[in-house]
Amino acid sequence: MKTHENLVSTYFPITANCSGEHNQLIRNTALIKRFRKDETILHGGKACSGLVAIVNGQLRAYIQSPAGKQVTLYRLYNYDVCVMSASCLIKNMQFDIHLTAQSDTTVLIIPTATIELINPVNPMFRQYTLDLLAQRFSDVMWTMEQIAFSPMPARIARFIADVANQNDEHSALLTHDAIAKELGSAREVITRILKYLQSEEIIKLSRGKITITDLRRLEELANQLSD
Amino acid sequence: MKTHENLVSTYFPITANCSGEHNQLIRNTALIKRFRKDETILHGGKACSGLVAIVNGQLRAYIQSPAGKQVTLYRLYNYDVCVMSASCLIKNMQFDIHLTAQSDTTVLIIPTATIELINPVNPMFRQYTLDLLAQRFSDVMWTMEQIAFSPMPARIARFIADVANQNDEHSALLTHDAIAKELGSAREVITRILKYLQSEEIIKLSRGKITITDLRRLEELANQLSD
Repeated sequence: MKTHENLVSTYFPITANCSGEHNQLIRNTALIKRFRKDETILHGGKACSGLVAIVNGQLRAYIQSPAGKQVTLYRLYNYDVCVMSASCLIKNMQFDIHLTAQSDTTVLIIPTATIELINPVNPMFRQYTLDLLAQRFSDVMWTMEQIAFSPMPARIARFIADVANQNDEHSALLTHDAIAKELGSAREVITRILKYLQSEEIIKLSRGKITITDLRRLEELANQLSD
Repeated sequence: MKTHENLVSTYFPITANCSGEHNQLIRNTALIKRFRKDETILHGGKACSGLVAIVNGQLRAYIQSPAGKQVTLYRLYNYDVCVMSASCLIKNMQFDIHLTAQSDTTVLIIPTATIELINPVNPMFRQYTLDLLAQRFSDVMWTMEQIAFSPMPARIARFIADVANQNDEHSALLTHDAIAKELGSAREVITRILKYLQSEEIIKLSRGKITITDLRRLEELANQLSD
């Protein structure tokens, strides 16, 4: 129980500013949940669990076309809080976001029922939700700019650089299929561009792995915008 | 003055639920502003005027690449309220939205200074801002789905159908250039697709005007998603 309480104040520092009563309510109702790699947390409007803080692991938020084509909107890592999973609290939110675990992931959840008790009487909590929403909105706008303005090679370069960077390495374990899914493109398109990047000696391709051989040029390409 | 007060309660019905003091403050500080067609209201983070209600006319919100390529995010019509122009109130909003008048436009503004006085002590006003933000977020997500999943012919069909619909007509006054700007594409691409739609006898092209000859097939195309 002590550990649990510590988790709440660690992952939801907002609770330090809540009244004793609200603080206690959150601690009493917060849940720990574990998801396996590729497990679905939220599918369209089909779940509304509450505010989800990532204790460890990674969540991917994406949109999906009726035909199954996906585009990643943003990813959430340790200490990030997913507000979309509590979007039923926000009126007029009329779109379907999907959330899956990218690796085995542990989350701490303040359930919707708890938030619905606290929100109407706690302006600070509402401000917290508003700030989270604004943050995700910013994330989505960044992705939108990439899709609208970046040529595909730049988007691929950005994605490889980011994945390698997360792992603190000069390589990324990525299949052509995984990149296609990530960027909402066809595998053939991705393969052609990856081969081009290899011919330019920016990356080196091997089975399921991409090694960065010229990080400076990869970053240059990643920052390039189309006109 | 009487007219002005009426305007406030008409375009910001939220004020009916504000205290007498806040209500008076809003009425005393609200401004009427007029913008000419193509005039810029908001350019990146360069202005922060407040909550902007459209009294008549139309505002276009868009993002722009460094090279000047634009993609329309959403449009605001009579009675819509622009929350982005008050985004300085929302922390963590880290992107540049541009706003221009699409026609001569009259707006009613609750200035930022007023909102900053009311917001901290009025939870209803914050909820109002949150709802507006969620609504715009939904609009942007819709656009994102179009960009990510809709083939260009479907996007063009949707745009023509929407413009014609707004004017309650079977035609739209649109140049190929205007469509290209709207959808963030090249004029040549748009021209080729429009000619295809004409050859399919879905639309008829004349100088600066597109007439819909088969609304059913245009709508069908507009609703088509790529896979």
